Amino acid sequence: MRFLSYEIDGVGGLAVDTGGGEYRGLLASADAFPGTLDDIVRSGDFAGAAARLKSGAPVDPATAAHRPPLTRAGKILCVGLNYMDHAAESAMQAPDFPTVFVRFNTGLVGHGAPLIRPKVSDKFDYEGEMVAVIGKSGREIAEADALDHIAGYSVFNDGSIRDFQLRTPQWTIGKNFDGTGGFGPVFVTADELPAGGAGLHIETRLNGAVMQSASTADLIFDVKKLVSLISIAMTLEVGDIIVTGTPSGVGAARKPPVFMKPGDVCEVEIERIGTLRNPVVAQAG
Amino acid sequence: MRFLSYEIDGVGGLAVDTGGGEYRGLLASADAFPGTLDDIVRSGDFAGAAARLKSGAPVDPATAAHRPPLTRAGKILCVGLNYMDHAAESAMQAPDFPTVFVRFNTGLVGHGAPLIRPKVSDKFDYEGEMVAVIGKSGREIAEADALDHIAGYSVFNDGSIRDFQLRTPQWTIGKNFDGTGGFGPVFVTADELPAGGAGLHIETRLNGAVMQSASTADLIFDVKKLVSLISIAMTLEVGDIIVTGTPSGVGAARKPPVFMKPGDVCEVEIERIGTLRNPVVAQAG
Repeated sequence: MRFLSYEIDGVGGLAVDTGGGEYRGLLASADAFPGTLDDIVRSGDFAGAAARLKSGAPVDPATAAHRPPLTRAGKILCVGLNYMDHAAESAMQAPDFPTVFVRFNTGLVGHGAPLIRPKVSDKFDYEGEMVAVIGKSGREIAEADALDHIAGYSVFNDGSIRDFQLRTPQWTIGKNFDGTGGFGPVFVTADELPAGGAGLHIETRLNGAVMQSASTADLIFDVKKLVSLISIAMTLEVGDIIVTGTPSGVGAARKPPVFMKPGDVCEVEIERIGTLRNPVVAQAG
Repeated sequence: MRFLSYEIDGVGGLAVDTGGGEYRGLLASADAFPGTLDDIVRSGDFAGAAARLKSGAPVDPATAAHRPPLTRAGKILCVGLNYMDHAAESAMQAPDFPTVFVRFNTGLVGHGAPLIRPKVSDKFDYEGEMVAVIGKSGREIAEADALDHIAGYSVFNDGSIRDFQLRTPQWTIGKNFDGTGGFGPVFVTADELPAGGAGLHIETRLNGAVMQSASTADLIFDVKKLVSLISIAMTLEVGDIIVTGTPSGVGAARKPPVFMKPGDVCEVEIERIGTLRNPVVAQAG
């Protein structure tokens, strides 16, 4: 199943693909509204939600005002340096354990919404990534069981303000400027995709030019390893998300560097999931 | 005002100091319950909450089952290397911008609850710190206005699994083992303390021996600077918390190193706020 979070006049809604990319959905104001996608991931009843949503109005993915698929993730765990070529281009050693940093829900925007280049920096870089959403809580999860804990997948643009990211030993500030992370366009349940979301083509385009092109098969730590290793430390809870890392080709590593500027359009496409497309605007003020 | 979050038989409660350390409180099951402290920070009506809580039953802080004062912080922003002596002992340069990493609510325990040394490491270190709680949202907050955005203060033990913290370039994993962060015993509204919580003695004791002793006046980036600088990047929202950093004396920097082990008791005391006391136990299993 494929779900799309949207809004009309500030009221949230959820839609489901009824087949062939035709979506129908309900707003939170409707009696039959099954809850937000955050709620449904927590309940696990995707089929029940889909059945209700099919009674709703048509929602055109091309014109809907998208929200990020999930907006209340308890943890957004982002993995750095998780493709060998990207670790090399960043002049960092590929680690023997996942390098995890954190993003916050409040810095994210949905498909179609503008990514915001801040006033204080012109070093705004893209990073196309696959998202895995936790659907079952656990700690010390064995690799063999790890994929049972994944509800589904989505697409992410881990927009990064490079000078702030590298200004201190920890990347948090440069990874959390308001309006710099793209998330969407849809959430796809795990049963629709290869195990672990592996072997999917992932491509980032800036103004149509291909900047990153790889396969999710090339992750150093694949989804089952990430779930298993992160859960050595902490309980992964339903609704947490793992942003699995970016392949080579980021703007900061190019010679000369390429950064996103107002007027640009950035797309991240993952085969069989979808294409996340965001224009870039300047921060107001 | 001083508030204490507790529970009885799994039901949450909130108590207020009615004067001289005598607390009265209400459980969430009571009609007059004013909400959790997270709710009250969001509403800002501390006086109204206190008035209701004074009608409640006595709560003995010495025997109550404490919860962390807040359990639903939207962001827990922790500042590293924020006392000059600690940056030096960590062999890290004092940064020109706050070094921010992130903890999650789910890894925290309240006053009196055990800190859990994981199975996979014996490098469990303490870090006594002052917490500032955001009471008013904002972005690009001027230093001169920053303290208007602080609702109050508390005490934190930023328990760290040092080998995992330093295993990869980002500290997230080593800072987020379940049950490794202490938070409490109480939340004190800003009007009860010096501006910015500055000039308070902070002391960490392990089994009664003083391990860290400093003044919050020695923060490299004080509370108003932290609020102002972090909000260059991101909107600080009501209920977010800033854990302001630890002074020198951490166990990992001692020769020989000192780590917390099952049976130990760790205390972090901040003058005029309180003493956070936690025993250390081994992870089960």
